[in-house]
Amino acid sequence: MEAAALLVTEALGGSRYALARLISLVEDDGADARAALATLYPHTGQAHVVGVTGAPGTGKSTLVNQLAKSLRAQGTTVGVVAVDPSSPFSGGALLGDRLRMRDLAGDPGVFIRSMASRGSLGGLARATGDVVKVLDGVGFDVVLVETVGAGQAEVDIARTAHTTVVVEAPGLGDEIQALKAGLMEIADVLVVNKADRPGAAKTARALEMVIGRNAPRGEAGQDGWCPPILQAIALDGTGVPEVLDAVAAHREHLRATGLWATRERERVETELLGALRQELLDQLLARVGEDQIQAWVERIAAREVDVYTAMQFILDAD
Amino acid sequence: MEAAALLVTEALGGSRYALARLISLVEDDGADARAALATLYPHTGQAHVVGVTGAPGTGKSTLVNQLAKSLRAQGTTVGVVAVDPSSPFSGGALLGDRLRMRDLAGDPGVFIRSMASRGSLGGLARATGDVVKVLDGVGFDVVLVETVGAGQAEVDIARTAHTTVVVEAPGLGDEIQALKAGLMEIADVLVVNKADRPGAAKTARALEMVIGRNAPRGEAGQDGWCPPILQAIALDGTGVPEVLDAVAAHREHLRATGLWATRERERVETELLGALRQELLDQLLARVGEDQIQAWVERIAAREVDVYTAMQFILDAD
Repeated sequence: MEAAALLVTEALGGSRYALARLISLVEDDGADARAALATLYPHTGQAHVVGVTGAPGTGKSTLVNQLAKSLRAQGTTVGVVAVDPSSPFSGGALLGDRLRMRDLAGDPGVFIRSMASRGSLGGLARATGDVVKVLDGVGFDVVLVETVGAGQAEVDIARTAHTTVVVEAPGLGDEIQALKAGLMEIADVLVVNKADRPGAAKTARALEMVIGRNAPRGEAGQDGWCPPILQAIALDGTGVPEVLDAVAAHREHLRATGLWATRERERVETELLGALRQELLDQLLARVGEDQIQAWVERIAAREVDVYTAMQFILDAD
Repeated sequence: MEAAALLVTEALGGSRYALARLISLVEDDGADARAALATLYPHTGQAHVVGVTGAPGTGKSTLVNQLAKSLRAQGTTVGVVAVDPSSPFSGGALLGDRLRMRDLAGDPGVFIRSMASRGSLGGLARATGDVVKVLDGVGFDVVLVETVGAGQAEVDIARTAHTTVVVEAPGLGDEIQALKAGLMEIADVLVVNKADRPGAAKTARALEMVIGRNAPRGEAGQDGWCPPILQAIALDGTGVPEVLDAVAAHREHLRATGLWATRERERVETELLGALRQELLDQLLARVGEDQIQAWVERIAAREVDVYTAMQFILDAD
């Protein structure tokens, strides 16, 4: 526990080495991680958490890179959490992509962390939330969370951000990828990236039509915000300042309307229930023992008993 | 409970109306759903569960449609569970896609069900597993599970299948989409769909290179199976019989090596732990009450206490 407290103190003091170790600790969970998060928690709640999500091939990693560079140029400090296993930030991409990220290296105002996608559904969401808290707590002004954004887990992770940027690109298929992935409803800012490619205007118009289904064009939606549709070429930085302006405008909107606090409470409730769910199971497994569980697994696999009946037996015997 | 038992009896007897109602019951969970699954469970374990997964735009819905049609032509009965919220099976796609699916309608040997992606991470995986069990239990020979396959939730759902078909298409971007989505490691059969488009051969070669990293080309991997890489044009049925042959060969491989039982036990363990996790939370919430939880959420959001400390207080007071 003392080691964890020391890591927090050193990370708060600006040590990147301590920060990296603290993030690894938090990713792996455990008693020390929880002690560290408890110490750090009063320092959190300041960062603007921005999710950047979109289908593979939309160039969202490049956009994240450009957003981070532009924010740094404004003097804003930036943490990046890449939940996409194929993100160049996580080393899964081609060399060309990885080189593009290099120009952020060596800047103390930037910290980049990629999340391994090992473990279970809830595990990744939990770990991502905790890593964001660490970056928030040690004082990064903006935390960018990059997700591949085409599955329920990613939608749930994106939902924990204050502002969600959904990235689209022309020519990825006949239809709008964000629509296919169910991302439209969580988009606060829409970006048509690779806007120099054929079909960019068509993609933007298609997005406008989809947005228009929910709210007449130009009018605000339920929460008083009409998601702007922007065009960008992340590769050379075109349109990136406009994306940042839209992200900043959305933060002001959240602050002015009280939605910031609403989103915060929703996120906290999801986290609390997730933590309770996992802790209750861990405690049960410690009492019941792995052998007992395996014996039930064998009986269920043999069709002697179904999962829910076995569950009831285990709980009744506990 | 009697109503649930009656539904099971009628569904086992071949009533499609009872089957549809049974699936809805199971999707929504609850005591009746669990009673129904317990009754049905001894009938399960016969179906070959085949996951079909791939990035948006790869044409996997069309492939699922063609696989179902070809299986029907062989006299095999087919259940389809579409977990992709944008699948034409779930009504989220454009009219053209939906029309293509119509030729399966009216055939009593086919049953199609789309899963709403509402609810939490674990909820969708739980519901999908239970719906597959219902289709298995009432006697469908093959159950095709279509997932968008680009997120952890989808990977986990795909993992519950006996055989996983990963669909790729040329021209979706510069890189292999399945690689980006982390699907390569769970692929039992790889299909380059839209093989009449430019770049199909290049995509197939790229897949071979990726597969070759794990096992030398043509040699078997860890579990004695080398995933074949097939080309297909799902739109006109080209290559679909070869995909079905590969799927059948994989089933024989699983049976011959005992891996069928291994995968079954892994699936059962995941289900059992998931059920325990959710039940323990539900029981706790019933005891603690929504007001108490909301009070803790407010305190956490106000940074008075962190999530894990709050969790410990709630558990200690329980």
